[in-house]
Amino acid sequence: MSHRTARPRAVPASGADSASAWRSGRKRLRDHSVKRDAVIRVAARAFNERGFHNTSLDDIAAALEVTKPTIYYYVTNKEQLLFQCFVTGLEPIRAALNDVKMSQAPGRERLNAVLRQYAQAIASEFGWCMVRAEHQDLSPSMSEHIRALKAEIDQGIRRLLREGVRDGSIQPCDVKMTAFALAGALNWIPHWFREKQALTPAQIADAFVTLFEEGLRPRPTRARAPRRPAARAPNL
Amino acid sequence: MSHRTARPRAVPASGADSASAWRSGRKRLRDHSVKRDAVIRVAARAFNERGFHNTSLDDIAAALEVTKPTIYYYVTNKEQLLFQCFVTGLEPIRAALNDVKMSQAPGRERLNAVLRQYAQAIASEFGWCMVRAEHQDLSPSMSEHIRALKAEIDQGIRRLLREGVRDGSIQPCDVKMTAFALAGALNWIPHWFREKQALTPAQIADAFVTLFEEGLRPRPTRARAPRRPAARAPNL
Repeated sequence: MSHRTARPRAVPASGADSASAWRSGRKRLRDHSVKRDAVIRVAARAFNERGFHNTSLDDIAAALEVTKPTIYYYVTNKEQLLFQCFVTGLEPIRAALNDVKMSQAPGRERLNAVLRQYAQAIASEFGWCMVRAEHQDLSPSMSEHIRALKAEIDQGIRRLLREGVRDGSIQPCDVKMTAFALAGALNWIPHWFREKQALTPAQIADAFVTLFEEGLRPRPTRARAPRRPAARAPNL
Repeated sequence: MSHRTARPRAVPASGADSASAWRSGRKRLRDHSVKRDAVIRVAARAFNERGFHNTSLDDIAAALEVTKPTIYYYVTNKEQLLFQCFVTGLEPIRAALNDVKMSQAPGRERLNAVLRQYAQAIASEFGWCMVRAEHQDLSPSMSEHIRALKAEIDQGIRRLLREGVRDGSIQPCDVKMTAFALAGALNWIPHWFREKQALTPAQIADAFVTLFEEGLRPRPTRARAPRRPAARAPNL
């Protein structure tokens, strides 16, 4: 079983006409990927609404208006669906951590970029699975894979905090506790967020990043500081 | 069924010797309360370790080295035990909110006092029940009572934030999002906290309150600001 995310990927452009023989194959692969993504997305919504144990593959097939054997074409069992929900939800956070590795921006800015992606990922339909689903519902190897992904994200956030402290863009702090506090605030989002509420995930991310960055205590000279202080002289 | 917490309370001192007739009755009540508290505490630990569904009243009786009928002397069923774990865990937070109502301190200081109590309550053995247990495992009336308690705590935190913004001790903010972020960071503690780890609940509370208060961005004139800035001139 592949551990890779099932998100649809753009088919790479090919300059060679001779590649036409591959096209139908590629299209089939893409269709398979798109449909598998739809199965996982519908499963995530169902688990969110009813809980993992109260959702059957029949329910998911019914929601997709397909037969259960069709579902088996994309996943082997419900456990694998839950696993894919985890992976699909966690992947954008991991991708954001990789993206900022290339950046020369101060640690705090890179951290904020990751936290914004994190907030959006966790406010997605995969949020519930990412934070509420139990590891005991997964096979040991799946559970181990998810733990490793989560540890990678946790370590990535701690690394950005350390780098920010080192470059002066982040106040010296207990890096481990701070990472737990930031992740906790974000991981709690699925407990209260509803898709139809007033704020979008991006707006929630903004409000959270502002709080983490500015703190509750008014700042002497910038009580109404801009949200992107990095645009000013750093480390004043 | 009483909705009050089962925490043992000190027997009020009585000046009257004639009260002696009551003493044995009071002592019995106190013993009952102490033992009931022990049952709830052991249940909380068992739910935490094995999950609510995987824990039986037999398991709890075995952990207490008593018979199951003895457990029934204190609670009527497992659902009621879970309910009492919720209430016992939430009660100190509610009490902290009530305590600060009398205080004349700035909003931020009063909020910090509540957040410290909150962190300690959630790092207690009841933490898991407070954040991981599902409302569907409770009867509708129990679930409604817990929801009301949680709403009271949420509203109490929002009120302190608003009061802090009004008295100038808290930076103007989106009060609802800020309350969600603070509660989320704290509610996540049972996911990573283990009793035998290096930091005590009070130290975790300190680290969290410092982050919420100071933010990650270094403060121009107080990069190494004290943890209790209210001891200085307020609202600088």
